[in-house]
Amino acid sequence: MVPVPAEVLSELTTQLLQDAGMPESDAAQAADVLVSADLRGVDTHGVSHMLRVYLGWLASGMVNATPVVRTVRERPGAATLDADRGIGVVVAPLAMRMAIEKAASVGVGLVTINNSRHLGMAAYHAMMALPHRMIGICTSAVGPLVVPTFAAEPRLGTNPIAVAAPSGAQPPFVFDAAMSAIAGNRIPLSHRLGKPLPAGTIADEHGTPIMTPQAATADYASARLLPLGSTRETGSHKGYGLAMVAEILSSVLSGSRFIFELGTGNAAHAVMAVDVAAFVEPEEFIRTMDDYLLTMRSTPPAPGHERVLYAGLLEDETERVRRNEGIPLHPEVVAWLDGAAAAADRPTLSRRL
Amino acid sequence: MVPVPAEVLSELTTQLLQDAGMPESDAAQAADVLVSADLRGVDTHGVSHMLRVYLGWLASGMVNATPVVRTVRERPGAATLDADRGIGVVVAPLAMRMAIEKAASVGVGLVTINNSRHLGMAAYHAMMALPHRMIGICTSAVGPLVVPTFAAEPRLGTNPIAVAAPSGAQPPFVFDAAMSAIAGNRIPLSHRLGKPLPAGTIADEHGTPIMTPQAATADYASARLLPLGSTRETGSHKGYGLAMVAEILSSVLSGSRFIFELGTGNAAHAVMAVDVAAFVEPEEFIRTMDDYLLTMRSTPPAPGHERVLYAGLLEDETERVRRNEGIPLHPEVVAWLDGAAAAADRPTLSRRL
Repeated sequence: MVPVPAEVLSELTTQLLQDAGMPESDAAQAADVLVSADLRGVDTHGVSHMLRVYLGWLASGMVNATPVVRTVRERPGAATLDADRGIGVVVAPLAMRMAIEKAASVGVGLVTINNSRHLGMAAYHAMMALPHRMIGICTSAVGPLVVPTFAAEPRLGTNPIAVAAPSGAQPPFVFDAAMSAIAGNRIPLSHRLGKPLPAGTIADEHGTPIMTPQAATADYASARLLPLGSTRETGSHKGYGLAMVAEILSSVLSGSRFIFELGTGNAAHAVMAVDVAAFVEPEEFIRTMDDYLLTMRSTPPAPGHERVLYAGLLEDETERVRRNEGIPLHPEVVAWLDGAAAAADRPTLSRRL
Repeated sequence: MVPVPAEVLSELTTQLLQDAGMPESDAAQAADVLVSADLRGVDTHGVSHMLRVYLGWLASGMVNATPVVRTVRERPGAATLDADRGIGVVVAPLAMRMAIEKAASVGVGLVTINNSRHLGMAAYHAMMALPHRMIGICTSAVGPLVVPTFAAEPRLGTNPIAVAAPSGAQPPFVFDAAMSAIAGNRIPLSHRLGKPLPAGTIADEHGTPIMTPQAATADYASARLLPLGSTRETGSHKGYGLAMVAEILSSVLSGSRFIFELGTGNAAHAVMAVDVAAFVEPEEFIRTMDDYLLTMRSTPPAPGHERVLYAGLLEDETERVRRNEGIPLHPEVVAWLDGAAAAADRPTLSRRL
């Protein structure tokens, strides 16, 4: 692997997105979301996996590089934005800044976004609230891959829910998870490598949960992910319901339709900020969060496990390492980035290192 | 089973709670929450299971029958209440009315409640938003029964999340679920009846997930429920994280500590209302919700299943039946209610039928 400093990767990513038609500030914002994912070890949502896809979408016009984002409705604690086919990595941060302003004013701000495209790492948008001593929440509705409980066919996206809460000495609580048992990208990976997926993560072609480890037999198009909870007996109706919650808040509440009807590629989002100071003395909240997080991570581990984690802990540790040592990129990715930079008459990544 | 009209059960429940020291309006509110659970088929949270417990708590002073609920902090879209050890079935509806008023004014209202006791059926509070064409959300943090991923000991409650969204012709979406793989009351039930729990729902005494069907070997006190998702491979870190989200919003944000530290019996809650009209034309929202819900329930079923449901559908159907035919009570419960009524010099349930 080639270690690449975050700043270097961010600069090249910004330039390539600009060359694809994005205004500089939007390109820099999108690059920051992508590189943040790389830094936190969420490689599936980082530069190496997503930049190629984003450039393809910009080239095809699926993503509008110069959207005119419009406020459709607004109240002191609420707003709906029409993203004009703008990508989530640009529009969601803009919406989150609105939500934070609203929360600073009335205590809570919820902003929904219709007519958008891929969100990027949901945690990024939720975490924007942290420096303001606010809780951040982000949801998204995406193309159908998930089979409702008892159903034969996918009707729901992997619909992530992210929640970030500020703390002091402890790394912040940052939850970010698809409401399917496993992430969508595990399907093509399993298919490509023939690597079996755990029991209780996918359904067969009739919708019946597969309860033995088995490699995915096909790519995305015919994927059937099980909801978080796997089967009715262990709570798949809960993951199914939570995926619907994410879709109702993101898509239906933003005046969009639902993604099963709109088709894959479409996305709608919701971001929310909750001002801690509107509810409790922030110092008290921070102190309790620290004690709460420490209580969780200091729980005695079960046999065979070294330690107990909480959402966001590993990602924070990874970010500390990668900020020092660089983001490890596969040589194939470096070669692709070099090629893309050369084609755009930009200095290659290798030359920048 | 003895069919009892909801009104009759509600009147007797109100009287018994009054005799235990509650003001009449609070007793009527509590009875409405309990009987609503019975009507919706959520028997675990209805009169037969909870009234005895509530009366015990009122007698012991664990629940304050005459709490002076105090607003600790307030902003146009936010508030924190100190429940003065008042029970959730009385205090949460009061908080939800505040949240609804705030949402009508600024678009969103979030009210947190510290120093409280058992919430009752979370869906009740969320559903209060529906007649206002609002989305209702309710969370609660309760005594530790759930083992974090990789951990040996319980640190989290079953911490429910409820979300209700209005619709038109279709029964409303009403999600209400513990963030454990199964509900807490399944433990004593399994213990009493020797009925095996499904694989992936409880951990052994070392915290290791039990992956074969097995009856719970002990009662609540030593219960170890797995989070929704069962094991790390199928997403238990997601159920664990969501249970923490519920605790952060309910307990930490209300200025309470966390329940593992406070001890079982304590509870904190959060209720939220989202005014649909602040985001989108309500008629459009209702139309899309109807189409969305119909799309889900008309998904072709997998082999061995008759139909696909969505959260709240069965409960709505049960309520229609029970409003007509009465709430079926076990003769043992009727006998207990008769005894309690007689002891309080009230007409017995049997005499009222």
